[in-house]
Amino acid sequence: MTSALLTDLYELTMLHGAREAGTASRRCVFEVFTRSLPEGRRYGVLAGTGRVLDAIADFRFDDADLRYLRRSGLLDEETLEHLAAYRFAGDVHGYEEGELFFPNSPVLRIEGTFEDAVMLETVVLSILNHDSGIASAGSRMITAARGRPCIEMGGRRVHEDAAIAAARAAYIVGFHSTSNLAAGAHYRIPVAGTAAHAFTLLFDSEEEAFRAQIASQGAGTTVLVDTYDVEAAVRTAVEIAGPQLGAVRLDSGDLGVQAHEVRALLDSLGATDTRITATGDLDEYRVEELTEAPLDGYGIGTRLVTGGGHPAPGFVYKLVEREGADGAMHPVGKRSQDKATLGAGKAAYRMIVGERAHAELVLPGESEVAEFERELIAELTSGEANPEWARTSLRPLQKPMILGGEPVHDLRAPAVVEAARARHAASVAELGLSPDDGPDGPPAIPTVTDGVEAARVLS
Amino acid sequence: MTSALLTDLYELTMLHGAREAGTASRRCVFEVFTRSLPEGRRYGVLAGTGRVLDAIADFRFDDADLRYLRRSGLLDEETLEHLAAYRFAGDVHGYEEGELFFPNSPVLRIEGTFEDAVMLETVVLSILNHDSGIASAGSRMITAARGRPCIEMGGRRVHEDAAIAAARAAYIVGFHSTSNLAAGAHYRIPVAGTAAHAFTLLFDSEEEAFRAQIASQGAGTTVLVDTYDVEAAVRTAVEIAGPQLGAVRLDSGDLGVQAHEVRALLDSLGATDTRITATGDLDEYRVEELTEAPLDGYGIGTRLVTGGGHPAPGFVYKLVEREGADGAMHPVGKRSQDKATLGAGKAAYRMIVGERAHAELVLPGESEVAEFERELIAELTSGEANPEWARTSLRPLQKPMILGGEPVHDLRAPAVVEAARARHAASVAELGLSPDDGPDGPPAIPTVTDGVEAARVLS
Repeated sequence: MTSALLTDLYELTMLHGAREAGTASRRCVFEVFTRSLPEGRRYGVLAGTGRVLDAIADFRFDDADLRYLRRSGLLDEETLEHLAAYRFAGDVHGYEEGELFFPNSPVLRIEGTFEDAVMLETVVLSILNHDSGIASAGSRMITAARGRPCIEMGGRRVHEDAAIAAARAAYIVGFHSTSNLAAGAHYRIPVAGTAAHAFTLLFDSEEEAFRAQIASQGAGTTVLVDTYDVEAAVRTAVEIAGPQLGAVRLDSGDLGVQAHEVRALLDSLGATDTRITATGDLDEYRVEELTEAPLDGYGIGTRLVTGGGHPAPGFVYKLVEREGADGAMHPVGKRSQDKATLGAGKAAYRMIVGERAHAELVLPGESEVAEFERELIAELTSGEANPEWARTSLRPLQKPMILGGEPVHDLRAPAVVEAARARHAASVAELGLSPDDGPDGPPAIPTVTDGVEAARVLS
Repeated sequence: MTSALLTDLYELTMLHGAREAGTASRRCVFEVFTRSLPEGRRYGVLAGTGRVLDAIADFRFDDADLRYLRRSGLLDEETLEHLAAYRFAGDVHGYEEGELFFPNSPVLRIEGTFEDAVMLETVVLSILNHDSGIASAGSRMITAARGRPCIEMGGRRVHEDAAIAAARAAYIVGFHSTSNLAAGAHYRIPVAGTAAHAFTLLFDSEEEAFRAQIASQGAGTTVLVDTYDVEAAVRTAVEIAGPQLGAVRLDSGDLGVQAHEVRALLDSLGATDTRITATGDLDEYRVEELTEAPLDGYGIGTRLVTGGGHPAPGFVYKLVEREGADGAMHPVGKRSQDKATLGAGKAAYRMIVGERAHAELVLPGESEVAEFERELIAELTSGEANPEWARTSLRPLQKPMILGGEPVHDLRAPAVVEAARARHAASVAELGLSPDDGPDGPPAIPTVTDGVEAARVLS
């Protein structure tokens, strides 16, 4: 299937109406942003950008698509011919994948004619909302895990294709591996998994099951010990595998209490290097509670892949600037009571002091950085001079991704996912958050839109 | 891509271990069920069965899959050859798509050898958890809408492929149409949509935008009236389209208050047949609150496609019965502290009195219906004879779907979705719930497992 039908009907009826009215070729700037973070979230993590760029590259209507649209009777033949020839020919700039976002961060900017850019709304939002929802939740879980490796294993709780994207998003925010084979195959993410309860139940005794698993997977495997009686299972597994037993997995009951008991038992059996992993309805709060338990890793599923209670960051795709009848560009924005938007394309920088992020700077109009800096300096020096200024830098957040319809980089390479993982790690480190503060709080840095506000943050 | 890699690694390592141990060809019964409904849910709606059967039919490893698995080094050559030849050869029975489920309803039963059935776990659960999560939420929204048509428009808030399945699930529970073109093309679901704010903003004035839309889509279109000023927009739209104007859409602000104002305004302008539709963060609670507002339809997005706060019903895929070394079948089940399961394959019936569902009957072992009936009758007649018994019937819930690897029906036809829609409507009607009771409460009917419990429900 092409990506072109992953689209809401209204994008095509708008295109059709604009073509008939002669406004379809007006130059337009669309931006993707969210107005706020979910309650308690300190930051969001952008994920899916690589997949968006793939989808834009693949966005073309094939014969089956066009037959369907023709049959629907909603578009005229001339519009259908236009769609048949459609290739996105505009520009895309955006935050790097793995980068953090805050309220009003312009994470993606699409520029082109109205008819070029309007059709991408649904597929762009689907991908960024989905992948970023998971990445934003997962990043909190990784922080709570304090370096203990986490396996993503939630594929069974989400749409079967979404499972692959979920594993990708989880890997970007620092998950060690995934249970999902398709994600392993597509994105070269390490895969993990050994056995479920069904394996133990298949055999006439737990001992036979463990013997079979260890014979097949080696002593380094992870044995699931809670099918019948945990203590008996641990003894049996060590008896068979010896102290080389890789790990035991707990999947039910009070994980914290059991971890202490199982650690003591393993140590008493000489299996001091055997690890203990925990699974079962874990999220950042449960993982945080397990900090003191002698656990060596977590398997995290449902709560991760469903976005930890906030499945989509609420990204919207808004027209912020467009050519008018006069041929000039004009900022535009809705004035509805509760959803007013700032017009005009925006530039975004992370304001860094030393090695710490202090603000998300979102400036209307790309040309105004110099003005911002003058304003900021004037503000800072009008009062007491702030020594921090010398250590302050502005990291540009928007990078060119597609120019004139051509991808700037090869965005399908596995290196894309690794680069996003590195970007995420670096940007989270810049926030300087400690897991001791718990996962919840206000946005870690404020979003500022001019030099006066920025100066207030620095002083 | 094949569906075979939509699988967790552990299914293949278990298969491998069982093959080496000589237990892979033991006959097995796996069941899909959920232990409880989410807090406040009166029932769940099973959706995705048709897609599951498709996925089982497509479940085969192609050359690329096998290359990946070979490279991973996790399986030996003999197992890879087995996978290359794999076709599911077992039986599948299950609840009809669109049917309701309750705690412990055995919605799907997969029978076959261990190696045949174990591999389907992830793809079966992904599809049923995803689609049923949306159907279960959507069904409540349809009840709350009290006959006003609802459009599914949430595709932009979920994974781009999940969006198609979401539209399908929504249609099954009674949504009128979807914004998603791919869902329209794949499943012949009616599509809807006219214009976004971007269309109004593209033009130099709202009037020009409305003229363009009405010229292109006809007076029967739905005009979005909240970009600038609602009252002015309504006047402009009626001026251009006349009283034939199809509908106006409100997408922000206090929808209830505005609906009254806009209705009065439309009526005063003679547009008495022009409908008013509302969109914007709606769910069953908001829709219920809007009952008294003069609205003619709803567009529902985020809360629907993300499962209304409960994205997955928690379906699990459990081995409940398997052949032992003695060649006989044995019920099996995990005995963990908080997740114990009843062993043995189960039969399920909805107990109906007159036209009302009274209980979900889940009987261990298919052969015991006669025994249940004896038990029930004995129980009822031992005390006071219950006249309801004469009007009581047991509707069998499990239907054959795949026998010996062959699909029983053509499950890809669009008729599948229509049949599911009819099944859902009939089963919800049997519960006799009123929207006046609000969406929340305990399960609408109890799950009973023997004649004594059933008799208690009837008396």
